[in-house]
Amino acid sequence: MKFTKMHGAGNDYVYVNGFVEQPEDPEGLARRVSDRHFGIGSDGLILILPSERADLRMRIFNADGSEAQMCGNGVRCVAKYAWDHGLVRRQELTVETGAGILTLQLFPGADERIERVRVNMGTPRLTRAELPMTGAADHRAVDVELAVNGEVFRATCVSMGNPHCVIYVDDVERFPVADVGPLIEHHAWFPERINVHFVQVLSATEVRQRTWERGAGETLACGTGAAAVCVAGVLTGRGDRSLLVHLPGGELRLEWAADGDVYMTGPATEVFSGEWRG
Amino acid sequence: MKFTKMHGAGNDYVYVNGFVEQPEDPEGLARRVSDRHFGIGSDGLILILPSERADLRMRIFNADGSEAQMCGNGVRCVAKYAWDHGLVRRQELTVETGAGILTLQLFPGADERIERVRVNMGTPRLTRAELPMTGAADHRAVDVELAVNGEVFRATCVSMGNPHCVIYVDDVERFPVADVGPLIEHHAWFPERINVHFVQVLSATEVRQRTWERGAGETLACGTGAAAVCVAGVLTGRGDRSLLVHLPGGELRLEWAADGDVYMTGPATEVFSGEWRG
Repeated sequence: MKFTKMHGAGNDYVYVNGFVEQPEDPEGLARRVSDRHFGIGSDGLILILPSERADLRMRIFNADGSEAQMCGNGVRCVAKYAWDHGLVRRQELTVETGAGILTLQLFPGADERIERVRVNMGTPRLTRAELPMTGAADHRAVDVELAVNGEVFRATCVSMGNPHCVIYVDDVERFPVADVGPLIEHHAWFPERINVHFVQVLSATEVRQRTWERGAGETLACGTGAAAVCVAGVLTGRGDRSLLVHLPGGELRLEWAADGDVYMTGPATEVFSGEWRG
Repeated sequence: MKFTKMHGAGNDYVYVNGFVEQPEDPEGLARRVSDRHFGIGSDGLILILPSERADLRMRIFNADGSEAQMCGNGVRCVAKYAWDHGLVRRQELTVETGAGILTLQLFPGADERIERVRVNMGTPRLTRAELPMTGAADHRAVDVELAVNGEVFRATCVSMGNPHCVIYVDDVERFPVADVGPLIEHHAWFPERINVHFVQVLSATEVRQRTWERGAGETLACGTGAAAVCVAGVLTGRGDRSLLVHLPGGELRLEWAADGDVYMTGPATEVFSGEWRG
C-alpha cells in the first residue's frame, strides 16, 4: 500500500490516497501503521476520499483505531496532498469531515508545492449545553473558578465542535501539565471529558500553549484547541482577535473574524512517502 | 534519499544503502530521521557500506547522532537487506562493525526473503577489568551483592564488547525497571556506566527479560544483552547453554557454544521503504 507521511505542527499522520487504495479494515490498519516501532509510526491514519458534497472527504482514525470527527492539523495536510499530488489543483478547496464541510485556502511556496493552509474552523459555541458542561444550560463559562487538587484555576470553556477548557498560567514551560491535565479532563463538570489548554500570555497578540488532549495526553499541537484559545483570549479581555500561538510542535496563526468564524493558518509538511509491506 | 525501515525484535532503524546514497552528515541525518514526529521515526540510522575486510560494513548512529559500535538486532537486518536487495546473496555473510567482523548465517523464508538470521556474537569477557568495573581486575562478578537504594540485588556482569549487568527478579512484569535501572546504570562500580537486564527465570531453557539501556532507557530488545543473559545463566547455574529469551519486542534464541562463542538467532523484518524529503 502506498502512503505519504505528513505532519502539521508536529501532529503526524499516515495519509492514504483513497482514490487509488481502498483499505478494507481502516480501524485495524490505523492501529498497525501507527505503532512507532513495528509500524510506520504516527498519531493515526487519514484517508483522502472522493466526496459527493465537497471536493474531497477525509476520514481520521486515531492510533487506537477509533474514528475522529475532525483534526485541524490533519485537514491542512489533506489540502497539501490534494494540490501537490494533483487530485484537486485549486487554491480554495472544500473538505467533508465528520464535523461538517470545511473551506480551506492554500498557499503555494516557491517550489509550487503547498506550505501553509488557512482553514475556516467555523463558529465557536459557548453555552454550557453546547460544550457540554454542567450548570445553567444557556450560560457561558468565562473565567470561572475551577478547583482542582486544592488549587483554584480560572477556566474558560469553548466548543469548536469538540470541547476545550482554557486555563491561563504564569509560566507554561514549568507547569505540571501531566499532573493537572488529567484532573481537569475528568472533572465532574465535563460529562464527555474535555481537552485542556494551559496558556501563557506573552502579549495581546501572542501566547504560548501546551495541550492535554482528551484520551491522548500531552500533544505537540491541537488546531481546534488553538482556535478555542483565540476565542478565550477575546472573551476574557486578554487577547486580540488575531493571535499567534506557539505550540511545542510549531506555530499557528488564529483569527476570530468579524463574521463570527475562526480561521486557523498553519504549516503542512510532507516528510516521506513509501510503500507499506505490513 | 531512498531508505528502508526495518526492525529486529522491535529495535528499529532507518537503513540506507551506502552503495547508492552517500549522506554527507550521518550524525545530523540520524538525529533528523530518528525523530518520531518530524522525521521517519526510529532508534537511529544504519548505513550499509562496502568493506575491504568483509562482505559489508555497517555504521550505526543513535537517535542522538552519536556513533555506536555494534547492534545485534541491527546487524541481522543488515544481512536481510543485503540478501533481499541483492547486494550479497550468500547464506553466510561477514559484516565489519565497530566491534570487529561478525559472521552471520541467513535463513530465507518461503518467499525467498530472509526471515531470521544467526549471528556469532563472539566470546564473552568476564573479568572486572574487561567490563570495566571496579574491584580486583582479574576477578569475575558472578552473583555478587549489589546494594541500590536500600535494597540488595544479586548481579552478574558480562561484557559482549559492551558492558552488561544481569539481575534476577521474581516477577519481571511488575519490576520497577525505570526506577532501579538508572541507579544501577550510574552505580559507582561502573566507570563507563552499564546496560542493565532484569530477568525472570521461567525454566532452565527460557527466561523473560526487560532491559534498561545505557543512555536510552527501557528498550524493546537488546541483542548483546540477551547474549549476556545466556552467559549469566550458565555462570550462576540458573540456565542451560541454549536459551530462549522473551523480550518486550520479540524473541531471541541464544546459544553459548562449546567453542566459547555466543550465537544469537532472531527475526529481521522490513516494515516499509520510502523516499525521504527532509
